[in-house]
Amino acid sequence: MTMLDIGVVGAGIRGRMFAGALRQLPDVRVVAVADPSPAGADLAAELGATAYPSHRELLAAHDLAGLVVATPDFAHRDATVDAAKAGVGLLVEKPLATDVEEAREIEAAIAAAGVPAMVAFENRWNPRFVVVRQQVESGALGDVLFQCAHLNDTRYVPQEMLSWAGRTTPAWFLMPHTVDLALWLSGRTPATVYATGLRRELAGAGIDTYDGVHALVTFDDGSTLALQSHWVLPESYPSVFDFRYELVGAKAAVRVEGADEGVQLAGPSLRWLHHATVERGGRVVGVAAEIARDFADLLNGRPVDVPTVAEGVRVTTVVAAIHESARTGQVVRLG
Amino acid sequence: MTMLDIGVVGAGIRGRMFAGALRQLPDVRVVAVADPSPAGADLAAELGATAYPSHRELLAAHDLAGLVVATPDFAHRDATVDAAKAGVGLLVEKPLATDVEEAREIEAAIAAAGVPAMVAFENRWNPRFVVVRQQVESGALGDVLFQCAHLNDTRYVPQEMLSWAGRTTPAWFLMPHTVDLALWLSGRTPATVYATGLRRELAGAGIDTYDGVHALVTFDDGSTLALQSHWVLPESYPSVFDFRYELVGAKAAVRVEGADEGVQLAGPSLRWLHHATVERGGRVVGVAAEIARDFADLLNGRPVDVPTVAEGVRVTTVVAAIHESARTGQVVRLG
Amino acid sequence: MTMLDIGVVGAGIRGRMFAGALRQLPDVRVVAVADPSPAGADLAAELGATAYPSHRELLAAHDLAGLVVATPDFAHRDATVDAAKAGVGLLVEKPLATDVEEAREIEAAIAAAGVPAMVAFENRWNPRFVVVRQQVESGALGDVLFQCAHLNDTRYVPQEMLSWAGRTTPAWFLMPHTVDLALWLSGRTPATVYATGLRRELAGAGIDTYDGVHALVTFDDGSTLALQSHWVLPESYPSVFDFRYELVGAKAAVRVEGADEGVQLAGPSLRWLHHATVERGGRVVGVAAEIARDFADLLNGRPVDVPTVAEGVRVTTVVAAIHESARTGQVVRLG
Amino acid sequence: MTMLDIGVVGAGIRGRMFAGALRQLPDVRVVAVADPSPAGADLAAELGATAYPSHRELLAAHDLAGLVVATPDFAHRDATVDAAKAGVGLLVEKPLATDVEEAREIEAAIAAAGVPAMVAFENRWNPRFVVVRQQVESGALGDVLFQCAHLNDTRYVPQEMLSWAGRTTPAWFLMPHTVDLALWLSGRTPATVYATGLRRELAGAGIDTYDGVHALVTFDDGSTLALQSHWVLPESYPSVFDFRYELVGAKAAVRVEGADEGVQLAGPSLRWLHHATVERGGRVVGVAAEIARDFADLLNGRPVDVPTVAEGVRVTTVVAAIHESARTGQVVRLG
Repeated sequence: MTMLDIGVVGAGIRGRMFAGALRQLPDVRVVAVADPSPAGADLAAELGATAYPSHRELLAAHDLAGLVVATPDFAHRDATVDAAKAGVGLLVEKPLATDVEEAREIEAAIAAAGVPAMVAFENRWNPRFVVVRQQVESGALGDVLFQCAHLNDTRYVPQEMLSWAGRTTPAWFLMPHTVDLALWLSGRTPATVYATGLRRELAGAGIDTYDGVHALVTFDDGSTLALQSHWVLPESYPSVFDFRYELVGAKAAVRVEGADEGVQLAGPSLRWLHHATVERGGRVVGVAAEIARDFADLLNGRPVDVPTVAEGVRVTTVVAAIHESARTGQVVRLG
Repeated sequence: MTMLDIGVVGAGIRGRMFAGALRQLPDVRVVAVADPSPAGADLAAELGATAYPSHRELLAAHDLAGLVVATPDFAHRDATVDAAKAGVGLLVEKPLATDVEEAREIEAAIAAAGVPAMVAFENRWNPRFVVVRQQVESGALGDVLFQCAHLNDTRYVPQEMLSWAGRTTPAWFLMPHTVDLALWLSGRTPATVYATGLRRELAGAGIDTYDGVHALVTFDDGSTLALQSHWVLPESYPSVFDFRYELVGAKAAVRVEGADEGVQLAGPSLRWLHHATVERGGRVVGVAAEIARDFADLLNGRPVDVPTVAEGVRVTTVVAAIHESARTGQVVRLG
Repeated sequence: MTMLDIGVVGAGIRGRMFAGALRQLPDVRVVAVADPSPAGADLAAELGATAYPSHRELLAAHDLAGLVVATPDFAHRDATVDAAKAGVGLLVEKPLATDVEEAREIEAAIAAAGVPAMVAFENRWNPRFVVVRQQVESGALGDVLFQCAHLNDTRYVPQEMLSWAGRTTPAWFLMPHTVDLALWLSGRTPATVYATGLRRELAGAGIDTYDGVHALVTFDDGSTLALQSHWVLPESYPSVFDFRYELVGAKAAVRVEGADEGVQLAGPSLRWLHHATVERGGRVVGVAAEIARDFADLLNGRPVDVPTVAEGVRVTTVVAAIHESARTGQVVRLG
Repeated sequence: MTMLDIGVVGAGIRGRMFAGALRQLPDVRVVAVADPSPAGADLAAELGATAYPSHRELLAAHDLAGLVVATPDFAHRDATVDAAKAGVGLLVEKPLATDVEEAREIEAAIAAAGVPAMVAFENRWNPRFVVVRQQVESGALGDVLFQCAHLNDTRYVPQEMLSWAGRTTPAWFLMPHTVDLALWLSGRTPATVYATGLRRELAGAGIDTYDGVHALVTFDDGSTLALQSHWVLPESYPSVFDFRYELVGAKAAVRVEGADEGVQLAGPSLRWLHHATVERGGRVVGVAAEIARDFADLLNGRPVDVPTVAEGVRVTTVVAAIHESARTGQVVRLG
């Protein structure tokens, strides 16, 4: 059992989560954290790792097996490309990039370096979708006819959780999840995209972004996908996110409730307690633990079923087209 | 209390429902039924009314206060226009028409005759939406930002319930409900329409229509509406229809479950028992009874809050644009 | 059409509701209200009726067709017995009484006077239970094996809504609803009762009553019923009440969600919007309107299907046994 | 890393599940299976293990670190006691025993031998209850006032899944889950038990057991627990089991939906797809995997938080009292 030294760039919610899940693997050491904010030093201290102001110092100082890139959505390129050039394997938080050119640049750098890499589209590990995928693969659903995926956040996310909400959009923040799911589950190639967006409430509150975006995607076989992502759900909603996915197949239909995980707490307010990732007996269990394990297996050269960089590029392409359509009011043709 | 003599054209599910609800009003007599099929004679016999092969004979034989037009979706014009010319008040099943020209012709005939008329967009009487409307009117929701309305049927509807499914579409059959709701609840004017449709399963089964249609509507103020209506839900779904409506406002969000009415029966299969209209102690109670009462009040000149013919024209205009967009792949601008 | 003059005793939530629903009937006049509090005069003024300090003055001043008794749970006897003696028909709010002797006294007075009377077990008119009853009557459920009925309130009810919570219990306030439902739907005769009650939170807050009561009832045929009613649900629960009913039959099982009526509002807090009784176009529609109509029909001698006084006595007997068992810790045998 | 050799007694659903989850641990070998039926040889062949007709031959042939006891509910004693005497660590399927004397005998044998042992009350690992437990421990719920736990099965379980349904009861099969949960989550000591049971449908179908049992448990502090377990849910129910748990605390209330895991499949019939334990990329993930890991850790002497044998005895004591009360109609006092 050789030990894998891993670094983390970005000490926010996601960087912290991946670090915690990785460190508990018997063959992983999380040795370094890069983040210019005090959160970086804090996380490094917790992990017994070394803190760096940026990924460059971190890469220079360590001979890593892998790097987790968990910087803000629009800031994945530099760390990813630099790590690839340094021969370091990659776990990149979704979306791969918020720009098609950047996504391709990342893809090219990884291909040129030949490093193992994966994108953290976490719903691939969500047991809800694992069983749906098994139904698709079994043929029980028949051809996919219609898909619908809603993933919204309460205003807490743009207004309190993210310091950089005005530099992205609810579509960039949320639709990579749902677009990846729809492509993965249906296996279809997108043909056209049409979208509408509304800017009013958040812009009025000083956050220059869409309140939300609706999109319709057609696939090469005529099947369609409806998407909705907005950031203006009231904070009284029992979860910080609202997530529903539906698929109508020729033989069966599936409906997934992704936010109401079955545990309701009526305390000071009504809340749904999430448990896709939980801590039990001091250990992280569930989605985050499974992603961490697969990343370690990927770095060790074992066969894993994980979202590829090419899939990351594809998702960025679709979400970029959604933004183009929302901006121009025109139907955008892909490919 | 003067008695209102009322006739019914179309002895299908809806004609029968309205006739039953009208006849129990103390001041209404359902005196005549027109339908070329044996169902017409059967319903007339049950009601103690006279049967006619078509609305023309019926109108010629009776001096009616009102006529219920419950023919197939695409066959509302003739009976409606003829009744208006004869000075008869009208309750027209939704949609007013499946063609904008026909809808305008109906509107003109009713205006010229000056007869009272209403369109049976039944969700206006559905208590679920009555309370949502009260929230809108109270200002509790704030400006409407996003709406989403899904109304789908199981395959039972096109394949078994309707003999004329191949002459209409799930969009004409279902979206008048949801488009009317969205316009009524938001009070906004539609600006653009984009839609996609899939023809595969039903066409393959010999019913030449869409399996389903997705649409995105933008309003004059930038707010948007996503619609979905299909006819390919598996018959194992616990209700013949699937109906969900959501509205995200600046101050609050509303979500309505329109199909699961709270009573689940696990018998030979799992079913939701509907109860928006029920029979209790031999009387029809609920939505159908309320529509009937409002129609009688309308005919008696009392003030009522019912869907107008102008609203019927507006809904037909939007649904026609949805079909145009689905056919051409282009965004359709309204007004 | 003869006019029915009706009086109301008790100007609280229920008295006001029945008065409003009765007055809109074409053949009813609500002419008098008795309540010692200012609410009595207020309600009388709204109704254009005369206010009285107690039911005695009211009965002395009017020749009524009917009287609504909507005093607190434990204060139904005097008005009911006096009205019966005066030959006045009765709509008594549930429970008929909170004491078996009083219930029998009421029953005897009504029988002696031969006046028409009904108890307002409102779930008999709730469309959810109307359709369950139809399933029972159709034989679709088979023999009833198990029933379970939970009806709870948030702390708002004992702590804010009711001034007299300390003079009753959650079992007297809530279980008449569920006991009546279970007896009506199953048609069985109760044989034994066992119950447990907890006094802690409300007593600690100065309201001398149970926090809640659990009960198990066996019927003559061995089938069983589990009941739960408490008053300590947190106020963050989206409804002031929590109501679920289940029935497992030999052929089918039914589950009724009685509190979540399908409309969720995420505003300042999350709320379910109730709509069993709604106001539409200025008219009360739904359960309250149907009860009012049946009371008028009862007074007019028309056949109605309403809860009888004997059923009211039976329910009081079971709920009294629940209290006896909770107090003694013993199984109580009925009949 | 020393390898742990583990045997499995009982090659039914549960034995198979534990074997599969254990074998994928890097430090575990499943070397032997004991089951007199052909299923034993089949499972052994799949695992590359040796099959034995009974646990005696198995224990004689191997020097095991641990044994999984997954025989029918009433047949846990012999293998457990014999393994303990042989110094083998134990994972015993719930319930520990269906007889209090047997449970104590098992407890004594394990104590005498000093072997590590745990009982597979699997809900302790269910993420839904892990987060509820965290709420209890955090103090967010306040004192526990009321608990309610329903765990039922469709008729498939007694009539098709279990060959030995007539030798146990739905209470022995199901209530160990819910009783353990209630004791674990509340930390209270049971004081009295009252229960009712109905024998009709299954007995009529030749399976000599209760259709179902209702029970009320009081705790030493006056708080109460209502339990329901039956085996007569119609097979059209979307899951083979129906599981709901509720806890009302002084500060907050929790409601857990244990059967509807959020994925609905409308195929030939309506089904909920379970995913507490899933296979992903050829690996078992979730509850079963976590139990297996904890068992290996227990055998390795690492600290684990697992259900103890003493807790197993306690649960058997309560469920035995439930049976006694259902048989005698009397309240049973514990301790």
